[in-house]
Amino acid sequence: MSAQGTCGTVYGVGLGPGDPELMSVRADRLLRAATHVAYFRKAGNAGRARTTVTGMLPADVTEIPMDYPVTIEIPLDDPAYAASLSGFYAQVAGCLRDLARGGADVVVLCEGDPFFYGSFMHLYTRLKDDVPVQVVPAITGMSAAWTATGIPITWGDDVLSVLTGTMPQADMVRHMTAADALVVMKVGRNLPRVRDALAQAGKLDRAWLVECASMDAQRVVPLAQAGDRTVPYFSIVMVHGQGRRP
Amino acid sequence: MSAQGTCGTVYGVGLGPGDPELMSVRADRLLRAATHVAYFRKAGNAGRARTTVTGMLPADVTEIPMDYPVTIEIPLDDPAYAASLSGFYAQVAGCLRDLARGGADVVVLCEGDPFFYGSFMHLYTRLKDDVPVQVVPAITGMSAAWTATGIPITWGDDVLSVLTGTMPQADMVRHMTAADALVVMKVGRNLPRVRDALAQAGKLDRAWLVECASMDAQRVVPLAQAGDRTVPYFSIVMVHGQGRRP
Ligand SMILES: C[S@@+](CC[C@H](N)C(=O)[O-])C[C@H]1O[C@@H](n2cnc3c(N)ncnc32)[C@H](O)[C@@H]1O
Ligand SMILES: C[S@@+](CC[C@H](N)C(=O)[O-])C[C@H]1O[C@@H](n2cnc3c(N)ncnc32)[C@H](O)[C@@H]1O
Repeated sequence: MSAQGTCGTVYGVGLGPGDPELMSVRADRLLRAATHVAYFRKAGNAGRARTTVTGMLPADVTEIPMDYPVTIEIPLDDPAYAASLSGFYAQVAGCLRDLARGGADVVVLCEGDPFFYGSFMHLYTRLKDDVPVQVVPAITGMSAAWTATGIPITWGDDVLSVLTGTMPQADMVRHMTAADALVVMKVGRNLPRVRDALAQAGKLDRAWLVECASMDAQRVVPLAQAGDRTVPYFSIVMVHGQGRRP
Repeated sequence: MSAQGTCGTVYGVGLGPGDPELMSVRADRLLRAATHVAYFRKAGNAGRARTTVTGMLPADVTEIPMDYPVTIEIPLDDPAYAASLSGFYAQVAGCLRDLARGGADVVVLCEGDPFFYGSFMHLYTRLKDDVPVQVVPAITGMSAAWTATGIPITWGDDVLSVLTGTMPQADMVRHMTAADALVVMKVGRNLPRVRDALAQAGKLDRAWLVECASMDAQRVVPLAQAGDRTVPYFSIVMVHGQGRRP
């Protein structure tokens, strides 16, 4: 806490799917008035979140890049992965906690909606009992993705299930079979497994691949026609619901 | 088409969950420049969508209220319900089609995200092959709802299933059992059935009830403590995921 005893607030601000015009009015306002801005990135990369706010931050803003120690080098289920990430989150959370206690408001840039599979959640759980934290919800990547296909995702009593391309394939097939509408997040290098699972669930012919929804590189294609190309990190596979429609 | 041959565009503009500051910058821009604004409402009600944009529309805007012929008087599964609604959608779609062909841009106000269980979808399917239609995605009610609980909805490989309170109860129980994280939309008068289904799925003790997320009347309470009160139309029940978190 500062000498005056005024603690700052950590804001987890969702930036939405990538198009800066799809940010909320509140996010826009907070960014243009920010004194401290923190964002995750892979070491050596500009970071999508930081790129999205280009031109919006005050010239004298203090930037706090948070460089991931690992992302793909260690397998997800290796205990070393969790340990390394956990230490990293503790360290950057400590840094933001100190800034807030010193009286600074810190805006943390979040891709999509912060509480939907977001990295900010790992800071949130470590900070929320110590300093004021406020979360600004945002348009998810999947909303931009179904909008990009030009097809509504859910009708009437359709069940929508959101899965990840990183989950065990047998579970994937089971959920794909049970749901009416489907969104698969975290596709990336898992695309072949996702395609396979959709074929087993009998839904491959209705699936779409959406890359970089709402960004300049947006690309929408029926999954069966996508071929074997490598897809970017920002890729979503979806199957639209076909429920009741008067 | 107008004499000059310039056809207008129908914009399906998502307004987000209710707080005007949670609108997108694009929605804000389109609304403040609108010449024609259409919105659904129950006859006799102001309509939530219209209320959300109070003070934002130009003074000389042309308003096109679209009054629902039925909502709750006829059961959902009665063929008369579908027939009545279908005629209504055809009629208002025809009105918007004529306006666009006459050269007007028409902004249709949509609660939450237009393509996620939205009424606009019924106009979209009837208009998209005839006149230019553009959809602006938005923050969903569920994003505002999980933000209001202060608990992230999905971690790691959590499966999120979105259900409706109007679906058959046995299906509800099955999906509630299978998913890690749950969102139940269209709760309203179905709250007792939803609560029952959650109890059968063994998840009642982890469920939250969120009314009017991000609106002045926002209320967040563990579902088991909600009692037997009647909940508003804008109510969501959710169970948060508990997946991998380093
Ligand atoms: C760690 S999750 C974060 C999700 C984010 N919080 C949200 O609300 O969309 C990252 C995954 O989100 C999906 N994603 C997010 N934004 C996207 C976009 N604009 N286009 C395509 N996929 C996107 C991709 O599947 C990506 O692998
Ligand atoms: C016809 S659906 C439309 C959903 C909307 N398109 C969206 O993206 O959230 C209406 C249902 O959405 C949910 N809902 C939408 N906004 C909400 C809010 N701000 N708070 C609580 N529930 C909301 C309620 O369950 C309501 O019955």
